[in-house]
Amino acid sequence: MRAYDIIYRKRMGEELTTEEIRALVSGFVSGEVPDYQMAAWAMAVCIRGMTPRETADLTMAMAESGDQIDLSAIAGRKVDKHSTGGVGDKVSLVLVPLVAACGAPVAKMSGRGLGHTGGTLDKLESIPGFRVELSPEEFVAQVNRIGCAVAGQTGDLVPADKKLYALRDVTATVDSIPLIASSIMAKKIAGGADAVVLDVKTGSGAFMKSLDEAFRLAEAMVAIGRQVGREVAALVSDMDQPLGHAVGNALEVAEAIETLRGFGPKDLEEICLQLGAQMLRLAGVAADGAEARKMLLRALRSGRGLSKLIEMVEAQGGDAGCIRQPVKLPRAQRVVPVTAPEGGYVQSITALEVGVAAQLLGAGRETKESPIDLSVGVVLRKKVGEPVAPGDVLAELHVSDDRRLAEAQERLLGAYRIGPGQPAPRPLVYGLVTDAGTERWA
Amino acid sequence: MRAYDIIYRKRMGEELTTEEIRALVSGFVSGEVPDYQMAAWAMAVCIRGMTPRETADLTMAMAESGDQIDLSAIAGRKVDKHSTGGVGDKVSLVLVPLVAACGAPVAKMSGRGLGHTGGTLDKLESIPGFRVELSPEEFVAQVNRIGCAVAGQTGDLVPADKKLYALRDVTATVDSIPLIASSIMAKKIAGGADAVVLDVKTGSGAFMKSLDEAFRLAEAMVAIGRQVGREVAALVSDMDQPLGHAVGNALEVAEAIETLRGFGPKDLEEICLQLGAQMLRLAGVAADGAEARKMLLRALRSGRGLSKLIEMVEAQGGDAGCIRQPVKLPRAQRVVPVTAPEGGYVQSITALEVGVAAQLLGAGRETKESPIDLSVGVVLRKKVGEPVAPGDVLAELHVSDDRRLAEAQERLLGAYRIGPGQPAPRPLVYGLVTDAGTERWA
Repeated sequence: MRAYDIIYRKRMGEELTTEEIRALVSGFVSGEVPDYQMAAWAMAVCIRGMTPRETADLTMAMAESGDQIDLSAIAGRKVDKHSTGGVGDKVSLVLVPLVAACGAPVAKMSGRGLGHTGGTLDKLESIPGFRVELSPEEFVAQVNRIGCAVAGQTGDLVPADKKLYALRDVTATVDSIPLIASSIMAKKIAGGADAVVLDVKTGSGAFMKSLDEAFRLAEAMVAIGRQVGREVAALVSDMDQPLGHAVGNALEVAEAIETLRGFGPKDLEEICLQLGAQMLRLAGVAADGAEARKMLLRALRSGRGLSKLIEMVEAQGGDAGCIRQPVKLPRAQRVVPVTAPEGGYVQSITALEVGVAAQLLGAGRETKESPIDLSVGVVLRKKVGEPVAPGDVLAELHVSDDRRLAEAQERLLGAYRIGPGQPAPRPLVYGLVTDAGTERWA
Repeated sequence: MRAYDIIYRKRMGEELTTEEIRALVSGFVSGEVPDYQMAAWAMAVCIRGMTPRETADLTMAMAESGDQIDLSAIAGRKVDKHSTGGVGDKVSLVLVPLVAACGAPVAKMSGRGLGHTGGTLDKLESIPGFRVELSPEEFVAQVNRIGCAVAGQTGDLVPADKKLYALRDVTATVDSIPLIASSIMAKKIAGGADAVVLDVKTGSGAFMKSLDEAFRLAEAMVAIGRQVGREVAALVSDMDQPLGHAVGNALEVAEAIETLRGFGPKDLEEICLQLGAQMLRLAGVAADGAEARKMLLRALRSGRGLSKLIEMVEAQGGDAGCIRQPVKLPRAQRVVPVTAPEGGYVQSITALEVGVAAQLLGAGRETKESPIDLSVGVVLRKKVGEPVAPGDVLAELHVSDDRRLAEAQERLLGAYRIGPGQPAPRPLVYGLVTDAGTERWA
């Protein structure tokens, strides 16, 4: 089986066999298939596409290309959650303890961030002492003991995806639905998930700019799950403006705590309830979404979600005092307001620009090696649809290093569009894709 | 201008600017644009295509990527000839002296072969003493003195094409009309041609298997010529069975001599007349194709074509006695007949299989470094349409090394399809593409 022939067949729009896809992926990982062949193949896939069967085969070939996490020592169905990413997405910080508090085990492996803010691991590290490096044994034992854990990856998971992603990144082959879908699903499967709940973001701050693309990606991932025997549910949700108010590591932890106290932003709470409902349903803890939502609301209102977070922080060596009193979290040296130059209503907030502002302040990494300032970031005081008067504070910049402050202020101000008339509200969740089909709600 | 964006635009089917194409080619030659990016781009071109303007820009960017031959010291319009290659294609050996004998200067740069037989240079080297390495000064002086020369390339011509071709060869991106057309034309333009006559082969022994593809390639090359100010004429001719009878280096030289004597195979003579007519027309030596054909026939019948070959061989240090008495050319140790197992008519002869048989006997190179036996090869005794009785000699194998003889016999026999009924004759030339348009004759 020659890589040449496999590339040629995909170039001609033919469907590759399982054996061909496996040979290509394993040859690529071993170095037998050089980068230039894989790049040509990836381009052919971008233009010609892949069938659901091919996409599932690629997913499994990548999932099996390296170590795989064995979560069988954890009782119950392990449901993982993944977001395609956005600005101010601190959902995991709320969702992990809340779902665990409802009785579904959550064994979550997370990553560090590259871009506007850190990843979930970086955010958790703003809690002094919090240890994200757990051995596989510690990880499993903690989930069995308290119901949840969030840790960094151990071992060499999905090396095929790491290598392919690096190549796609420089060959203009990133935005291909089968390649994105298989990359996400391979990581979840190698991570040992029995079922997966996905939050596919759409809008200016998301990778999928259009609603139709977002639904197609959601459908592709649900289809992979069907092919490989993992139940998958995917919400398509809005990321046109940032989620919640806070963008920045410690700031987002504080907002997650507020949300678990019941005083969080409504958009953040609602997305957590909807994703959590799917997780409880797939874990078999709730019979349906409606029952799951009631369970989650009870856990939220009773404070059991917050207690679970405290339990998890303590289990992982973190200072739980910071959770009880978020003012103890790392704080930036000063807060600089950004004010409205004119009055009207907030028409839109370009999420990506808010992210760039936070990154300029030091909240995110520019390269893998960049240091990150966990205390800095942005807090939005006005969101889309709110009225503003000239001089009103639109947002606060939490700053420790002034060097790029002017640039951050300019980006943030540029992110806001203010105009006359209250804009029609945008839906928060556009629909749900499950094995039962696609429901488009908006 | 980032390679990434150029790749992405081509992926989306957009038309690249002249500047983008130049930047990509020069970046690729300098090493700034790595192989994997160029491979992704080449795949996008294969699937999305290129406009005539883009194809011409690519041609010129490649032609100007290295040394360029200056033929301005040769008086008259220099017309080069190129064949897309086939089995038993010894046309240049006949055409160069014949056209020169009619008064058009022919300064031909040729290559060595990889595949079923050697290239024109290898064939000429079967004439003892023949020197193919001429300095640019010797080359120009010889054309000015006697009207023609055939030599190997000097200098670093079209490095972009060499590098891109090597990459296409391993990434399943060879058979793309804009990429093939620009590769051929870049070499002709860098070689200093004022005008170019192309012989685009079609059929089982050709690179372009279908007639439509062959016409499209011919049209693409004529269009490049129009864009870059070089007049181009392209014949589309048959390469379903080998051209003439001989396949193998010295054997083909002998057949070329026979043709210049007026006793050559009719198909070979005819294609030489037709290509030669276009060359004389483009050189401005004949007013039109009809006049040019008469001039060529006179040169052939008077023996002036043969005299010109002798003159050229002498000028380049070769033993002209071999031209006068072709039995003096290198000869294989023995001749092994391949006989017909059954009677009927020759329905077809798969050219490629005849080529493989010749290569197995040692007539062609498997790798660039392989030695080549100039004496060996195949002579077809029966061609398509001829009747055969069981036991008739179909072909002769000229053999010096028996090791792969059995395999060669099998391939040769397999190339022949014999059946009842005389097949309808196939056209030799299917049409002509010039600036005036496409004429399809068959």
